[in-house]
Amino acid sequence: MVMNYVFSDKISGLKPSAIREILKATADPSIIAFAAGNPAPDAFPVEEIKKISMDILEKNPIAALQYGATEGYTPLRDAVKKRLASQGSFSDRDELIITSGGQQASELSCKIFLNEGDTLICESPSFIGCLNAFRSYNAHLAGVEMDDEGISLEGLEEAVKNNKNCKLLYIIPNFQNPSGRCMSAARRKAVYEFACRHDLIIIEDNPYGELRFAGEDIPSVKSLDTEGRVIYAGSFSKVVSPGMRVGFIAAAPEIISKIVVCKQVSDVHSNILAQMICHRILTEYDFEAHIANLKSIYKRKYTIMADGIKKYFSSKVTVTEPQGGLFIWGTLPEGSDMIDFCQKAIARKVAVVPGTAFLTDENAKTTSFRMNFSTPTDEQLTEGCKILGQLTKELYGE
Amino acid sequence: MVMNYVFSDKISGLKPSAIREILKATADPSIIAFAAGNPAPDAFPVEEIKKISMDILEKNPIAALQYGATEGYTPLRDAVKKRLASQGSFSDRDELIITSGGQQASELSCKIFLNEGDTLICESPSFIGCLNAFRSYNAHLAGVEMDDEGISLEGLEEAVKNNKNCKLLYIIPNFQNPSGRCMSAARRKAVYEFACRHDLIIIEDNPYGELRFAGEDIPSVKSLDTEGRVIYAGSFSKVVSPGMRVGFIAAAPEIISKIVVCKQVSDVHSNILAQMICHRILTEYDFEAHIANLKSIYKRKYTIMADGIKKYFSSKVTVTEPQGGLFIWGTLPEGSDMIDFCQKAIARKVAVVPGTAFLTDENAKTTSFRMNFSTPTDEQLTEGCKILGQLTKELYGE
Repeated sequence: MVMNYVFSDKISGLKPSAIREILKATADPSIIAFAAGNPAPDAFPVEEIKKISMDILEKNPIAALQYGATEGYTPLRDAVKKRLASQGSFSDRDELIITSGGQQASELSCKIFLNEGDTLICESPSFIGCLNAFRSYNAHLAGVEMDDEGISLEGLEEAVKNNKNCKLLYIIPNFQNPSGRCMSAARRKAVYEFACRHDLIIIEDNPYGELRFAGEDIPSVKSLDTEGRVIYAGSFSKVVSPGMRVGFIAAAPEIISKIVVCKQVSDVHSNILAQMICHRILTEYDFEAHIANLKSIYKRKYTIMADGIKKYFSSKVTVTEPQGGLFIWGTLPEGSDMIDFCQKAIARKVAVVPGTAFLTDENAKTTSFRMNFSTPTDEQLTEGCKILGQLTKELYGE
Repeated sequence: MVMNYVFSDKISGLKPSAIREILKATADPSIIAFAAGNPAPDAFPVEEIKKISMDILEKNPIAALQYGATEGYTPLRDAVKKRLASQGSFSDRDELIITSGGQQASELSCKIFLNEGDTLICESPSFIGCLNAFRSYNAHLAGVEMDDEGISLEGLEEAVKNNKNCKLLYIIPNFQNPSGRCMSAARRKAVYEFACRHDLIIIEDNPYGELRFAGEDIPSVKSLDTEGRVIYAGSFSKVVSPGMRVGFIAAAPEIISKIVVCKQVSDVHSNILAQMICHRILTEYDFEAHIANLKSIYKRKYTIMADGIKKYFSSKVTVTEPQGGLFIWGTLPEGSDMIDFCQKAIARKVAVVPGTAFLTDENAKTTSFRMNFSTPTDEQLTEGCKILGQLTKELYGE
């Protein structure tokens, strides 16, 4: 009587994101959430969104409520093209589509290029949401280690040698999730040349690029692209609001036209009111001042966490020192039991994400874990570092 | 220098929806759009949406702007469960997820069940958006003819006999798109029993069910489901706003949990503000009165078009007589050139959709075409019928 469901091969092994499961556990408000990736609540342009929404629903409600074009709301597309062009990430040869967040950008890019079993190369660790999107199309994931300059060139060469049908290379050059690392300009150039040599399409995922609070901007890989092989994915999630689900893809028109037909069958188009709001925030307000404000918020929060780590953590624990984004990547001494550490931390009411969640092989070993400094309050940042630090000293000495 | 893009097998043959391409052509405001499927502009609860939006952004902006749960906004899920339960389409054994429109409901249902090459059986003609979604996973589509009571039982038996790995059955029982037909209660029962016998999962797509303007409601196939094999997809697109992209799936929890992981990697979650708006329209306003108003709008518009057809069309052209929904399906005399008719119609500034767009085999022949009565103004409905009628008389006699 009860059915025996037979699901498709591609999704049978797919598990809910470990992070989102951890987040559910941390709905408990007494837990300090170093495990999340939410923008700081004071980073949302609430007043602007309120004013703009009112104005749209007053003057132009039908346009906001009726069906729209799959490609996206034209004035928003134009505004994003202009901004990307000013950053070197959009050329006259490119096209642009609005997506339902950056997640959909990577998911559709995978869908249009990969047959089941084809190989996608990526940084390891990398963003679990996109890794799972690739897994949901039965992509074979080849993870490549990083150093401080980004994905390893030797590792890339090994990956194309050891894996069949390598077609895509997924990278997060700016303030990578989870490592916080930023790929150097030289490495970007070398990675692009590698992709040309091996005829790979690059998905350059850049959700955090606007959030640089130290150092100098580095040109995107897209800005180096003379052959039309870079799919540049961006998002309003970290600079306006993730709840709106507005992202975008800039790429060659041949790629965008395939993305359009795939998005059409996926969700027809993205929420229109949200697109209209993003358009007006981008064009009618001082967007640069808004970004400057975000940077100062995240710089403050990063500094509190970095200072807390310096002050309270065992010297045996190493951490990355990001110049932007939302994450710090911590690494326990070799041979230590990272899962045990994360469980002890949550027992003391601080949640971090086990590094295994970000590996292409989730059964591989790592002693690393991810900490987020955008979600907790300033007080929680210090308090959480104190608790985690005490734990590291108990486990690994001063 | 210019790349030769090699796209995935599953999407290489995918074309933009013929309808959306036609709609682009009809952006010309001088064209009478019988080809669209948009809700009537006066059907939107604009004042309510404005008031609710303001209130949310005033009192609870962070909840509307921050990340949310993939399953959807809990109060909306609860309200939809309650409404579906009152209609017999949600039981204690079911679960529910909010999707980005009804389109995503069908797309994800296909993704979790079908391997490439597996067969999906559907009515022919059927909704092109979902047919293309199924095609984008390399589903083999087996179209089955309909009679006035719905999909043919003999045709279904033939389909499982002649096609391999039949796993899904996609149906639109209420005011089917494009035919406008409604499946009888007896046929629903027989179709459900057929699915049980052949171990098929049914996707019951019901975007138009609330829009019955004549006759009596017929219980959903979901209401007959004792085995957990019906995926019920609904949407707010036709009753609140399509631009918001809010739909839902009610199904067995085993199915919903797979849909959740697939939605998580697709767009994380649906736009939160839109979910909050739908929740409050459903719970704080007189939703029944709103639906009654929609029914009276569509009854009026249908009657104008039906009267126009009766008055102006050649008697050689037959049409369906829907009791709800948005569409009338017209059929030209046997042997006539339907594409030529559609082209002549657009030359006279009336757009209809060629019936071939809705066939599982787009190269098959049909003399049918789709007309929509929700998008045009009342005046355009009469004027369009006059123009089309004149054309039919010129081509096929009185």
